[in-house]
Amino acid sequence: MRGTMLYGPRDVRSEERPYPTIVEPTDAIIRLSAACVCGSDLWPYRGADPVTQPTPMGHEYVGIVEEVGSEVRLIEPGQFVVGSFFASDNTCEICRAGYQSSCIHRQPGAPTGSQAEYARIPLADGTLVATPGLPPEDLIPSLLAASDVLGTGWFGAVAAEAGPGKTVAVVGDGAVGLCGVIAAKRLGAEQIIIMGRHDERIALAKEFGATDVVQERGDEAVERVRELTDGFGVHSVLECVGHGASTETAIGIARPGGAVGRVGVPQEETMPASLPAFFGNVTIGGGPAPVRAYIEELLPDVLDGKIEPGKVFDKTVGLDGVPEGYRAMADRESIKVIVQP
Amino acid sequence: MRGTMLYGPRDVRSEERPYPTIVEPTDAIIRLSAACVCGSDLWPYRGADPVTQPTPMGHEYVGIVEEVGSEVRLIEPGQFVVGSFFASDNTCEICRAGYQSSCIHRQPGAPTGSQAEYARIPLADGTLVATPGLPPEDLIPSLLAASDVLGTGWFGAVAAEAGPGKTVAVVGDGAVGLCGVIAAKRLGAEQIIIMGRHDERIALAKEFGATDVVQERGDEAVERVRELTDGFGVHSVLECVGHGASTETAIGIARPGGAVGRVGVPQEETMPASLPAFFGNVTIGGGPAPVRAYIEELLPDVLDGKIEPGKVFDKTVGLDGVPEGYRAMADRESIKVIVQP
Repeated sequence: MRGTMLYGPRDVRSEERPYPTIVEPTDAIIRLSAACVCGSDLWPYRGADPVTQPTPMGHEYVGIVEEVGSEVRLIEPGQFVVGSFFASDNTCEICRAGYQSSCIHRQPGAPTGSQAEYARIPLADGTLVATPGLPPEDLIPSLLAASDVLGTGWFGAVAAEAGPGKTVAVVGDGAVGLCGVIAAKRLGAEQIIIMGRHDERIALAKEFGATDVVQERGDEAVERVRELTDGFGVHSVLECVGHGASTETAIGIARPGGAVGRVGVPQEETMPASLPAFFGNVTIGGGPAPVRAYIEELLPDVLDGKIEPGKVFDKTVGLDGVPEGYRAMADRESIKVIVQP
Repeated sequence: MRGTMLYGPRDVRSEERPYPTIVEPTDAIIRLSAACVCGSDLWPYRGADPVTQPTPMGHEYVGIVEEVGSEVRLIEPGQFVVGSFFASDNTCEICRAGYQSSCIHRQPGAPTGSQAEYARIPLADGTLVATPGLPPEDLIPSLLAASDVLGTGWFGAVAAEAGPGKTVAVVGDGAVGLCGVIAAKRLGAEQIIIMGRHDERIALAKEFGATDVVQERGDEAVERVRELTDGFGVHSVLECVGHGASTETAIGIARPGGAVGRVGVPQEETMPASLPAFFGNVTIGGGPAPVRAYIEELLPDVLDGKIEPGKVFDKTVGLDGVPEGYRAMADRESIKVIVQP
């Protein structure tokens, strides 16, 4: 079958790979309907994370179940399923508390890579959510988004305590930030400030419900957000970038008693402890999103077309086009690339 | 009148001071029934914070109202009142959200110093809470605790999301940590681990409801807490010290999805951003406690003797004994010193 391997910085290849097989009795094999390129795939692609050996790529996916292991009870061949970037048992104490991304049996969601024709999915019963019947083709991008960016934006909004009547700022206009806007809107936020600089992303953010745009950065961004919020800052901040500077801005624009939900993978070892975090009474939560926790909740709205997170995909490639997809995202020509095998 | 002034490191003096007078029409003048020495008073006393000019000391207090300004409506002469270390209007949007310590009109709670015979209290209507009638003498230490350490421990527990069935760890066995144990217990925590090394403080923590003791520090402390919690770590951590090392420990002992409430004033500019904070899905909240928010809620339990935070006071001095009180606390001979003018 065709699959995607990363060999080193800017060296990602679509090549022949062995068909995945059941390894553990809790595994499933799925035929991919769609996968995508994640912002986090770009860290090793750009050389920011070292690539020590050729690595199968892709961890966001939807597909049709081909085969299940002997201990799989809930998932069956023929079902259309949505997965997550981490596999989780969905039964341990940590999963039951809603933190499947920290499941005590957590493992990579698609160890053979989902940018491929087929993939092995561990802990299938815990990880996969089946849709009622086969969804129509045009919903596949939004269902695919539910396997990572939608749930990640959602978790950012939950961690930032977004809700009815709240003022919300979303730091970062990438796919996760845009899904964060969808989440803030669905959670009832009154004001949603998107912070970014790319015209087409800002336009999509507005379509998703953003009410204000802040293009400034650093101290100027903090100043601008305060102007937009009667001098207070916002109740809720979604940090969807992960840089030290964006994290400082995120904490700086929260109002006293506000909350920051960090879903951008941190690129620095430390963050501010004192001012304004402590002295501003700002709560800082987040982390790897327990996407699995939200799939059932968000699926009906996706299937009804009430939310359309699939709009974050602005470039489509086949498996042979995956290297071009990486390039386009790395060069910021594309927000997010969908892979249709 | 007698009052307390800090002149420099280890140089605190009880001396004659002018009687305070009404400056703003929202002020009140109170006659102190009791005040105390705060852990935060020890930072400048030890030389950790520079003392640029002689400074009146003390910001925790209970007393009898002597006089009120022309715009004071709710507080009247003769009332016994409990205050907070910040004065707040209790009406602004931030106060109404429960963050009086970040009130838009926030100012020092007792600018003339409460380690004195009399003190001027700004924003009297917002800051002071009157008890029903004059309380008996033996309740004064616990009422005094409600003006800072009880509310601070309480806020730490709230920020750490302590609650029924939760496992809680309290980092630090000072007066705030001990009040944090009271708070965790009152909030229904199932397991309360006190982390400290002083025998008499540990004994008091147990009396307040601590179920386990961890004397180790650093990685050993993290290991020990995991052993006590089925390998998970605790749901809720109260960070009541403020050092970089104690903050790292606090984050390290939280379980995935757990929360840290920081109420120790941070002595470092940064804290861990990545591991284990982000990747452990740990929420970090806290800051200067909105003590004012909790006085009404906690007062009935104090007046009924259901909680006895006053037990954290283990040394009593008069105003002339204040310098000896600072010395005893700085040398860790005393947990907390009560000043009875």
